[in-house]
Amino acid sequence: MTKWVYGFGGGTADGSASMKNLLGGKGANLAEMCSLGLPVPSGFTLSTEVCTNYLDNQKSWPDGLQNQLAKALQVLEQQSGKSFGDAANPLLVSVRSGGRASMPGMMDTVLNLGLNLETVEGLAKLSGDRRFAFDSYRRFIQMYSDVVLGMDHDLFEEILDEHKDVQGFATEADTELAADDWEQITKLYLALVEDELGHEFPDDPVDQLWGAIGAVFDSWMNDRAKVYRDLHDIPQSWGTAVNVQAMVFGNMGETSATGVAFTRNPSTGENLYYGEFLINAQGEDVVAGIRTPQALTERAKEEIGDTEPSMEAAMPKVFAELTEVFKQLETHYMDMQDIEFTVERDQLWVLQTRSGKRTAKAALKIAVDMVAEGLINESEAILRVEPSSLDQLLHPMLADGHNCPIICTGLPASPGAATGKVVFSSEEAVIMASRGEDVILVRIETSPDDIHGMHAAKGIVTARGGMTSHAAVVARGMGRPCVAGAGELRIDYSKGSFMVAGQTVHKNDVITIDGAKGHIFSGTATMVQPELTGDFGVLMSWADKVRRMKVRTNAETPADVKTACDFGAEGIGLCRTEHMFFEESRIAAVREMILAKDKAGRIAALDRILPMQRDDFVEIFQIMRERPCTIRLLDPPLHEFLPHSERDVTQVSQATGIAISELMSRAEGLAEANPMLGHRGCRLGISYPEIYQMQARAIFEAQGKVKQQTGIMADVEIMIPLAATARELEILQDKIRQISEQVTGHQGFAPEYQYGAMIELPRAALCAAELSEFASFFSFGTNDLTQTALGLSRDDATSFLGDYICQGVFEKDPFVSLDQSGVGQLLEIATKRSRLARPDIKLGVCGEHGGDPASIHFFEGLGLDYISCSPFRVPIAKLAAAQAVLLREK
Amino acid sequence: MTKWVYGFGGGTADGSASMKNLLGGKGANLAEMCSLGLPVPSGFTLSTEVCTNYLDNQKSWPDGLQNQLAKALQVLEQQSGKSFGDAANPLLVSVRSGGRASMPGMMDTVLNLGLNLETVEGLAKLSGDRRFAFDSYRRFIQMYSDVVLGMDHDLFEEILDEHKDVQGFATEADTELAADDWEQITKLYLALVEDELGHEFPDDPVDQLWGAIGAVFDSWMNDRAKVYRDLHDIPQSWGTAVNVQAMVFGNMGETSATGVAFTRNPSTGENLYYGEFLINAQGEDVVAGIRTPQALTERAKEEIGDTEPSMEAAMPKVFAELTEVFKQLETHYMDMQDIEFTVERDQLWVLQTRSGKRTAKAALKIAVDMVAEGLINESEAILRVEPSSLDQLLHPMLADGHNCPIICTGLPASPGAATGKVVFSSEEAVIMASRGEDVILVRIETSPDDIHGMHAAKGIVTARGGMTSHAAVVARGMGRPCVAGAGELRIDYSKGSFMVAGQTVHKNDVITIDGAKGHIFSGTATMVQPELTGDFGVLMSWADKVRRMKVRTNAETPADVKTACDFGAEGIGLCRTEHMFFEESRIAAVREMILAKDKAGRIAALDRILPMQRDDFVEIFQIMRERPCTIRLLDPPLHEFLPHSERDVTQVSQATGIAISELMSRAEGLAEANPMLGHRGCRLGISYPEIYQMQARAIFEAQGKVKQQTGIMADVEIMIPLAATARELEILQDKIRQISEQVTGHQGFAPEYQYGAMIELPRAALCAAELSEFASFFSFGTNDLTQTALGLSRDDATSFLGDYICQGVFEKDPFVSLDQSGVGQLLEIATKRSRLARPDIKLGVCGEHGGDPASIHFFEGLGLDYISCSPFRVPIAKLAAAQAVLLREK
Repeated sequence: MTKWVYGFGGGTADGSASMKNLLGGKGANLAEMCSLGLPVPSGFTLSTEVCTNYLDNQKSWPDGLQNQLAKALQVLEQQSGKSFGDAANPLLVSVRSGGRASMPGMMDTVLNLGLNLETVEGLAKLSGDRRFAFDSYRRFIQMYSDVVLGMDHDLFEEILDEHKDVQGFATEADTELAADDWEQITKLYLALVEDELGHEFPDDPVDQLWGAIGAVFDSWMNDRAKVYRDLHDIPQSWGTAVNVQAMVFGNMGETSATGVAFTRNPSTGENLYYGEFLINAQGEDVVAGIRTPQALTERAKEEIGDTEPSMEAAMPKVFAELTEVFKQLETHYMDMQDIEFTVERDQLWVLQTRSGKRTAKAALKIAVDMVAEGLINESEAILRVEPSSLDQLLHPMLADGHNCPIICTGLPASPGAATGKVVFSSEEAVIMASRGEDVILVRIETSPDDIHGMHAAKGIVTARGGMTSHAAVVARGMGRPCVAGAGELRIDYSKGSFMVAGQTVHKNDVITIDGAKGHIFSGTATMVQPELTGDFGVLMSWADKVRRMKVRTNAETPADVKTACDFGAEGIGLCRTEHMFFEESRIAAVREMILAKDKAGRIAALDRILPMQRDDFVEIFQIMRERPCTIRLLDPPLHEFLPHSERDVTQVSQATGIAISELMSRAEGLAEANPMLGHRGCRLGISYPEIYQMQARAIFEAQGKVKQQTGIMADVEIMIPLAATARELEILQDKIRQISEQVTGHQGFAPEYQYGAMIELPRAALCAAELSEFASFFSFGTNDLTQTALGLSRDDATSFLGDYICQGVFEKDPFVSLDQSGVGQLLEIATKRSRLARPDIKLGVCGEHGGDPASIHFFEGLGLDYISCSPFRVPIAKLAAAQAVLLREK
Repeated sequence: MTKWVYGFGGGTADGSASMKNLLGGKGANLAEMCSLGLPVPSGFTLSTEVCTNYLDNQKSWPDGLQNQLAKALQVLEQQSGKSFGDAANPLLVSVRSGGRASMPGMMDTVLNLGLNLETVEGLAKLSGDRRFAFDSYRRFIQMYSDVVLGMDHDLFEEILDEHKDVQGFATEADTELAADDWEQITKLYLALVEDELGHEFPDDPVDQLWGAIGAVFDSWMNDRAKVYRDLHDIPQSWGTAVNVQAMVFGNMGETSATGVAFTRNPSTGENLYYGEFLINAQGEDVVAGIRTPQALTERAKEEIGDTEPSMEAAMPKVFAELTEVFKQLETHYMDMQDIEFTVERDQLWVLQTRSGKRTAKAALKIAVDMVAEGLINESEAILRVEPSSLDQLLHPMLADGHNCPIICTGLPASPGAATGKVVFSSEEAVIMASRGEDVILVRIETSPDDIHGMHAAKGIVTARGGMTSHAAVVARGMGRPCVAGAGELRIDYSKGSFMVAGQTVHKNDVITIDGAKGHIFSGTATMVQPELTGDFGVLMSWADKVRRMKVRTNAETPADVKTACDFGAEGIGLCRTEHMFFEESRIAAVREMILAKDKAGRIAALDRILPMQRDDFVEIFQIMRERPCTIRLLDPPLHEFLPHSERDVTQVSQATGIAISELMSRAEGLAEANPMLGHRGCRLGISYPEIYQMQARAIFEAQGKVKQQTGIMADVEIMIPLAATARELEILQDKIRQISEQVTGHQGFAPEYQYGAMIELPRAALCAAELSEFASFFSFGTNDLTQTALGLSRDDATSFLGDYICQGVFEKDPFVSLDQSGVGQLLEIATKRSRLARPDIKLGVCGEHGGDPASIHFFEGLGLDYISCSPFRVPIAKLAAAQAVLLREK
C-alpha cells in the first residue's frame, strides 16, 4: 500500500529534507526540523502523490488515504494532548499547501480548523480569552467559507461593517470589538452560510478537515497558480503536498507574536538577520502586508528609522532563542533560510523554514561569502545562483549624479532601476506594455491577481506593505525593481493620480524608481551599465573553471559585438549578415539587387554592396581578433527586403527608376504562401550564387585587410543556412572556393576559413552524417528546427500556444525552452551521426535556446562544443553551462 | 587496377547481360549476344564508371584507361582482321552511348570513325564502291564536326546545297551525286573545319577515337538528356557507357540493308514480328525517320497497305536468318526484344538487342501470353508491366459510334485517345498546357528538342516517320496517344494550319486522335472508360495473390469512392472532411461557424452543418459496406473557408447579416504568416472542440443509421490531423469519447470506431511510441511530412525545385516520389517505435506517395499495412505493391 501520509512531531518524523518532491518544500523541512529537535508544532503531510492522484481521478481520494489520515490524526492528538472536537481541550489545525517549489500566496490556506460552537467555548476557557476565541472562530468561518465553500469574501465584510455601524464603532477599529461583538458576528456568519448555501456550516472537525484538504489541492489548478507556474517554469505535473499542523497562536496577547525572518539580507546578501514581526497577530497578518510590521533587530530598526521597538528589544529572551534557531538551520542547510515563526505566550514555535528567495545580487554575495566562511565549496556556490536571475545585474542601473528630482522614498524591496509611465492597474499595465510602452505599476498594495500586471511592468511601487509583502517577494522573484511601502503616497485610483509632498503625479507621467535604494524620481534618469566585478566576477571565474562548453554570442553590429565581449563572449556564434542589409544607406542597393531583371543587373548592384559588407566584417574582425566568428550567409526570403508601405515604394521607385507598378508586381511575384518554408537560406545561394559569392568575397577581403593591418588572421567560419541535403553544401562549397582562389590571387595569400552548415531542418539533422562530408562544423538553429519539427510557425502560434501550455500539451513555450523530447531527439541524432562520420566536427547551438538554462543543460548532456546567445545572456549561459557540468557529475 | 574496358567479339566477351549497370544495356547485351554465338561485329565497351569518373574529375581520364583501351583496340584489330589507319584494310568503328536505361536519341553517336584521306581510298578499294567510301567519309566529317568539334551542322549543309546548285542537281537528290561529287565535297568540308577552328580535322584514327569517346560522355550532361532523365526518373549519377564497335555497312548497295525489329508488336502485344527496314541505308536513317521505311513481313505490309516489298519478300534468306535470331533472343531473354540489324552484302549483323519498349496494353498482353507459352511464370509476368504505364489504360478511350468526322489516318504509333486544340510548336504546347488547355501537338516530325512539348500535349500527330520514329517511341514511353506518318497532312507552320483532303485545320481548332487506330477526327469525340478485364484483369488477379499491403483510396465524394471501388480499392485511407464543407449549399453555414463571435454562435452554425455532414457519411458507408473508412477531421486553417473575392464577400455579408467591414477584418485576423505551420489540424480541434465533436457526432449517427438500414456496421477510423504530441491525442480522444457516449444513449447501441492519428510532423514521427498510446492506427501524411522535414513549402518550391533537380540536390521531385533517405527515415523510426510500443498498431500511408511505385517499394520494405492513393492510381498501386513483394523476395 502506498504511503500517503507522513507524520512529524515530538522530535521525530516520517520524512526528511531530502523528500521535497514527495512532501513539498514545507513538509520536508517541517519533518527535518522535527528531527533536528527544533520547536515545531506536530502535524502530518499528505504527499504530492495524493494531489496528482486526486486530480487525475476526477477528485476522488486514493485507496488507503482515509485510514492513514485517521491514524495520523490519532498520533497528532496524542502528541498535542488535544482532541478534535473536544469541548474541553480542542485540537485546532492549519491546512496549508506546500509544493516542490515555493509559490508564495498563490494557493489556499485554512487556519483555526476544528472550531465549532462547542470547541470555541473550550478555546475561550483554555486561553482565558473569550474575545480571542470568537475572533479566531469568525476568522475561521470567513476563511473556510471563502476557500472551501466558494462564498464571496465581501458578504462577510458587509456583516462586520454593519455590526460596527450599528454599534457605533469606526470602520477600521477591529481591535475595539469585544468578545460579545465577535460572538454575535460569528452567529450572523453561520446564518449567512446556511442562507446562501442551503445547508449548515460544517460542524464536525473531521468533515472540516477533508473539505479543507480538497480545497487546497483544488487550488493547485486555480488561475493565478497556473500563471505563476508558467512564469516560473514549474510543471503542472508536480502537484502540491498539504500540511496539517496543530495551530499555535501569535495573537494570544502581548507575549505572543508572529514573524518572518531571513538569516541574511535577501536583497543585498549581507550576513545580517533580516525580518519583521508583529506582536499579538497571526502569521498571515505579516505576509499579507495589511499591518506594517516592526523590525527584527535594533540595527535594522535604526537603519530604516522605525519608531516601534525591534523584537530584539521587545522580546529579548525569545529573540535569543530565535537566533540560535537561525544559526542551527543555516549550518544544517548550508544556505540562507527564510523562516516563519510564532511566539505563543513566550513559547517560540518554528512553523516553516526554506531556502530564502533572494535577489541575484544577494545570491551572488551569499554564495561567495559562504565559500569564504567555509560553509560550502566553489561548486556549491556555482549551483546556488539561478542563472536567469543574473539578468537583473546585467541591465542598466541609475547613474550617479543624474538630475531627476526625488519624489519620495519607500522600502528598497527589489533592486534595479526602471523608468516608465505611471499606471494604476494591472490591466492598464498589460495593455500599455503590449503596445511596447514601458510602465511602472503603482498600487496601494498588490495581490496575487496582479501577477500579470507586475510581469508586464518595468517596475512596481506600493504604498503599503513591508519587505516581505506580496509585492516585494514577487518582484524580487521576477527581477523587477520594486519600491514597497512608500507610505507618503496618497493614491487615488478613481482620479488616476497620486499625491506626494504636495505634488500630483498623473497616469502616463513618467517616473523612475531605484529598487536598490527605495527612491522614486520624477522623469527619466540616466542609467549606467553595472560593473561586472566583485562577487559577480568571482563567481563567474569559478564557473569558468568548471565550464566545458564555450559560450559565444549572436551579434552583428559592432556595438553588440563589443557588449558581448565585455560580458565574456568567446566568439560569435551567429552573425546574421542580412541584418547588415537593412541599414538606410544600403537598402537601396539591396533592393536594386533583388529587383534586377538578370544576373548582370544583380551583379552590378552586388558590386555596390560589396565594399559596405566588407567594412562590416573589418570592424567585427578588429573587435574579435583571434576569437572565432561564425558568419551566416543571406538567409531570409528576398521579399523581406522589398518596400511595403506606399511611401517606401515611392522612394524606391525614385531611387531605382523602376516604375511603381513594376515594383508592386515584382513584390507580389516574390510573395510566398509559406515564406518560412520558401525560397530562402541556401536556396537563394543556389539560385543566385552571385549573392553568396559577394558575401564570401567581402569576408575574405576583410580578413585579408585586418591581417595586413594587425597581423591577426580572423578565425572565420562561413555558415550555410537552411541546408537540407549534402549536395547543397557541395555546390556552394565550390562556389565559395572559387572566390577564395580569386582573392588568393589578388591579395597574395589564401583566406583561411572553415565551411559549415546551420542545422535547422529535420532532414538535415537526420542526414547529418552525409552533410558532415562537406562541413567542418554544424550549428543547430533550434528556432527553425522547432518550427519545422513541430510544424509550428512562431509568428502564428501565439493564437493558440497559451491554450496549449494550459492544457499541458507543452510544459513550456517550445520557442523559449527546447522541446527536449521532440526537437531534442533531432539534436541527439545529428550529434551522434555527424561525430561518427567526422569525429573532429565542431558542434554548437545558435538558436534562442542557447541562452536558456534548461536547454543548456540538455546541450551539455549532448556534449556540444559551444552555445551562442544574445549578448546580455552570455553570463547567464556561462553560469548555466558550468552548473550543467556540475549537475552531470553529481 | 579497375577494369575500365570490356571486349566482345569472336564468340566470347568479357561482359554479360547481367552487367547492365556497369556496361549499359547496349554493351551488356552486345557481350551477351557474342557469347550466344550471334553475328555481332566485334568491339569493346568503356564502362559507366569511366563516365562518372571522367565527369567527377574535371573531364580527365582515369588511370589505366589508356593502356586498357590500346589493348582492346589490338584485340579488335585481330578479330576484324583490319587495322586503324591501315590504308589497305582500314578498321572503321562506331562510337555510341549506352546507359543502364534506354534514352533513345538523347545522346550523341559517331559513325565511320577511322576514315581519313588515306583510309577512304582503302575503303573504296575494298568495297569496290568509291561513291560509298566518300559518302561515308563526308558523313563522318559532318557528324564528328557536329558532335565532337561543336560546329554548326548547317555549315556543312550549305556546302552540300551549293555544290548541288553549281552542278545543277535537285536539292533532294543525294542519290544522284557521284563519287567525284562526294570527294569534292569532302575536301570542302575539311577546308571548312580548318577555316572555322584554326586547326586541321583530326587525321589520326586514335585521336578521332578519344575525341569521340569524350564527346559521348559529355553528351550525358546535355540539356535534352537531362530533361529526358527528369521525365523518366533516371538518376544522373548512373552515367553512360560507350561502345566502340567495328562498322558494318547497310549502305553497300542493294544487297545491303538496315532495320529495326520487335519480336512482338509493341503497340498491341500481338505475337507477330514487327519492324521496318531500308535497303541500302545506314541504321540512323531508319530511326531518324527521314526516309519512310518498308515493312518487315508480308502480313504487316498488307495490313498497312504498303506498296514497297517487305523484307520477307525482298531478302528471304537473310529474313529467315533474322527470324532465327528473333526466336533465339526472345527465348534467351524471355522477353520481347527490340533489335537493330544491318545486312552488309547479304551478311546479317545484329547490332543491338534490348527489351522492347511497349505500350501498357502490349506489356499486359505480352506478359500474360508469355505465361501461357510457358516462357515465364506469373511472378515474372507481374514484374514485366511498369505500374505507372497502366495509367494509359485507366483513362477514357473513344466511344464506339461517336459522330466526329474522320480527317485522315496515319500510323497507330501510340494507343489511347485525346482531344485538344491544335498547336504547331512545342513552345505553344507548353504555354497553352500551363493555362490548363488540352492541346494536340502537330509536327512534320519531332526531334529530341520537342520532349517538353510532347509532355505538355495530350496527344501527338506527325506527318512523317514510321512506327519507330522519334515521335512514336517517345510518345509510347510517355503514354501519350500518337498518330505518326500521316503523310496526307500538308502542314504550313508559317500560316499556323494544315491542309488535308481539301480541308484546312487552323491552330486552336479542336481535333481528336485515336492512337490505337491512327485516326484523326475533327471536333470533340465521346470517350468511354475502358473495361478493366481481359489481360488487365488476369494480371491484376495474379498481382492480388502476391500483394501483401492493402490498397485504399483517398476519396470523399460518392462518385470518387465509387470509381475507386470499381478499380479495386479495399477501403478509404483518407476521407478529407473539409472537402465536404465547400459545397455551395453548405459553405454559408461553415462561414457562419467560423465568423461566430462565441462558442454559442459556433455551436448554432455547427448544428446546421451536422445533418449535411451526417448524410455525407451515410452515402459513403453505404458504398463502402464492411470496408474500412479512415475519416480525417477538419484540417485546413479556417481562413481557407472565408470568402476572398469581392462578390463572395458581398454574398456572405447578405447571407449572414455580418457587415462587409467586419467580414474583412475577421478574415484579416485569421490570416497567417505561414498557414502551413499555423492554426490548423488538431490545433483547431483543441481550440474549438465543438467542431470535432460535431464531426464525430455526424460519423457516429451515420454509422448507426446505416447499421439500422442494412445491418452492416461501417468500419470507421477517426483520424486526427497534424498531431505533434501524445497529449493532443489524449485531449481529443476524451472529447470524442463524450460524443460516442451521448450517441450510445440516444441510439441504444454504441458506435464502433478506431481512433488514430495522421503522422505528418517530424516530432510526431520521432515520438511515435508516445503517440501510439492514444492511437490504434497511424497514417503517414507524407505530403506534409515532406514539407516539414525538408522545410519546403509545396506551393513555393516551384520557383526553385527545377533548379534543384537539375543540379542534383534532389534526384526526383520529393513531392512525387518519397525522399527515402530523408523523410523515409522518419517513417522508419515511427514504424519501429510505434510497433515496439504497440505491436498491433495499424500503419498506412495516405500522401500522394501512396500511388508512386518507387515509394510503394519503400513502404513494402517498412512492412506497412496499407497504402492509399487517388482512385485512378489504385490499380497502379496494387501492381506496384505486388512487384515490391516479389522484388524483396528476390
